[in-house]
Amino acid sequence: MTRTIIESKTKTVAIGFDAPFCVIGERINPTGRKKLAAELEAGDFSTVERDALEQVACGAMVLDVNAGVVYNSNPNPNETEPPLMRAMIELVQGLVDVPLCIDSSVPAALEAGLAAAEGRPLLNSVTGEEERMELVLPLVKKYNVPVVAISNDDTGISEDPDVRFEVAKRIVQRAADYGIPAHDIVVDPLVMPVGAMGTAGQQVFALVRRLREELGVNTTCGASNISFGLPHRHGINAAFLPMAIGAGMTSAIMNPTRPVEMEAVRAANFLMNHDPNGAEWIRFSRVLDAVAEGTPFAQAASEANAAGAGRAGGRRRRRG
Amino acid sequence: MTRTIIESKTKTVAIGFDAPFCVIGERINPTGRKKLAAELEAGDFSTVERDALEQVACGAMVLDVNAGVVYNSNPNPNETEPPLMRAMIELVQGLVDVPLCIDSSVPAALEAGLAAAEGRPLLNSVTGEEERMELVLPLVKKYNVPVVAISNDDTGISEDPDVRFEVAKRIVQRAADYGIPAHDIVVDPLVMPVGAMGTAGQQVFALVRRLREELGVNTTCGASNISFGLPHRHGINAAFLPMAIGAGMTSAIMNPTRPVEMEAVRAANFLMNHDPNGAEWIRFSRVLDAVAEGTPFAQAASEANAAGAGRAGGRRRRRG
Repeated sequence: MTRTIIESKTKTVAIGFDAPFCVIGERINPTGRKKLAAELEAGDFSTVERDALEQVACGAMVLDVNAGVVYNSNPNPNETEPPLMRAMIELVQGLVDVPLCIDSSVPAALEAGLAAAEGRPLLNSVTGEEERMELVLPLVKKYNVPVVAISNDDTGISEDPDVRFEVAKRIVQRAADYGIPAHDIVVDPLVMPVGAMGTAGQQVFALVRRLREELGVNTTCGASNISFGLPHRHGINAAFLPMAIGAGMTSAIMNPTRPVEMEAVRAANFLMNHDPNGAEWIRFSRVLDAVAEGTPFAQAASEANAAGAGRAGGRRRRRG
Repeated sequence: MTRTIIESKTKTVAIGFDAPFCVIGERINPTGRKKLAAELEAGDFSTVERDALEQVACGAMVLDVNAGVVYNSNPNPNETEPPLMRAMIELVQGLVDVPLCIDSSVPAALEAGLAAAEGRPLLNSVTGEEERMELVLPLVKKYNVPVVAISNDDTGISEDPDVRFEVAKRIVQRAADYGIPAHDIVVDPLVMPVGAMGTAGQQVFALVRRLREELGVNTTCGASNISFGLPHRHGINAAFLPMAIGAGMTSAIMNPTRPVEMEAVRAANFLMNHDPNGAEWIRFSRVLDAVAEGTPFAQAASEANAAGAGRAGGRRRRRG
């Protein structure tokens, strides 16, 4: 069974065919969040703190950390991203105990993140672009970490899923040349918006099956891309995630603070027989009850976690 | 491509691998509805009328009609079901234009329904029980209708999915002996509650793929069985339906007046590329908007249908 092991200082998460779907929280990312970018430039990390705590409370198993800002004071990300990445990683791993996913298009920021992260973070990402492979794969090898491999190359993103499969295969082969095993590569087959390309969903489902069966790799995606530009996006996302999970997708980079999508993931885990006796579903259903009564999702989830920890503590005390 | 053709007097519905998921409305069924059973015994068909209109408004493409009452005045269903089935079929096909699914465990009621139904109804059901095959398959042949085949036999319902597959295969083979083609058989692989059997979801997904690939048949199920006994059932159902559709399930007998499940089905249709340009999704999203503002689902759906008919009429007028 393919298992991609990601670790923080104290916690291990396995992405795998036989494991619950791995929810990678996407919120710590200033791309497209002007207010957050301005805060970071001003040295204000309060939104990052809140995003870290809320996402973990809501069920994120891994947190993506992206430092992709362009400062007004310095437009060169090669200078600004590495120290910001280091600061964000140190902050986040001081606040929460989940493993991290170091996300940058700037190789120096990836290395700064790798140097700062405790445990075994997931690196995000390599692509099939020659220069990118030559820069990132040595880092993957040097730090012995798993890596997200995105299925585009120097010719761009192909609309042909067979081409995207071949790009993924080439990355896996190149990684093998560096001594990086397939189980340390998590392929993103690239999700197109179904509103623009009617075959987008079926492409992903077919690719995930092939990637799993032919390359033996775990998979991930930016799940919300599927519903880009459409009304009632959460409804599309909440059907897409179970379908992708049914096809064999093992993780997604997504917003865990949306209860509709998290409900879909938890139901899909149960239906994949990755939730023994539905214990997680039943626990989560109490959070849904609280949300239905008006409690914000993150608060309801936090309270349920605290109650669960209290019960576990009670059991431990009785044993002692 | 396997296509099961069902017809009313004026409308054709194709269940098929290349068609939108066929929602068969389950509401017209007195089993477990004491109030409805009492009404029917008293000759009051108002609930049946409302259930017919509401289900079609909400998006049912076929209506299941089940006359399974036990009258206080006459406990023999062989005497009471056939005339009640005839009366219900005549009533329903006078009210709505969708094809019907004639649902009974009493062969005489099936035949009464077949005699009363216009077009090409779906017969529900045959099983792998010897006596049942001998009684029902000749009716299927005589009336040239498609039939639901449920995967249990004289030994009962097996918990082993391989046994259920073999039962389905035997029914398909026996039907062939009568000259009934596989594309006129819609197999129900039987959905167990996931709360009682953790493998229930995966069994269905695997069976649907095998039934499709090895026997070339369409499939259906009583979808809500999956969530029996669990809290937040609709969340389980709303993940199960897209996963089953992704695995190749082509229809379900379900409650179309539940917006959560219908949203999941419509999103899954879009993701299966069975909703060109997302036109149905966008239309349905307006219904969801109205539901979010407090309009009951059936009313919101009716109003959207009326508005759509108005627009279509407008286009026709411009052409005239």
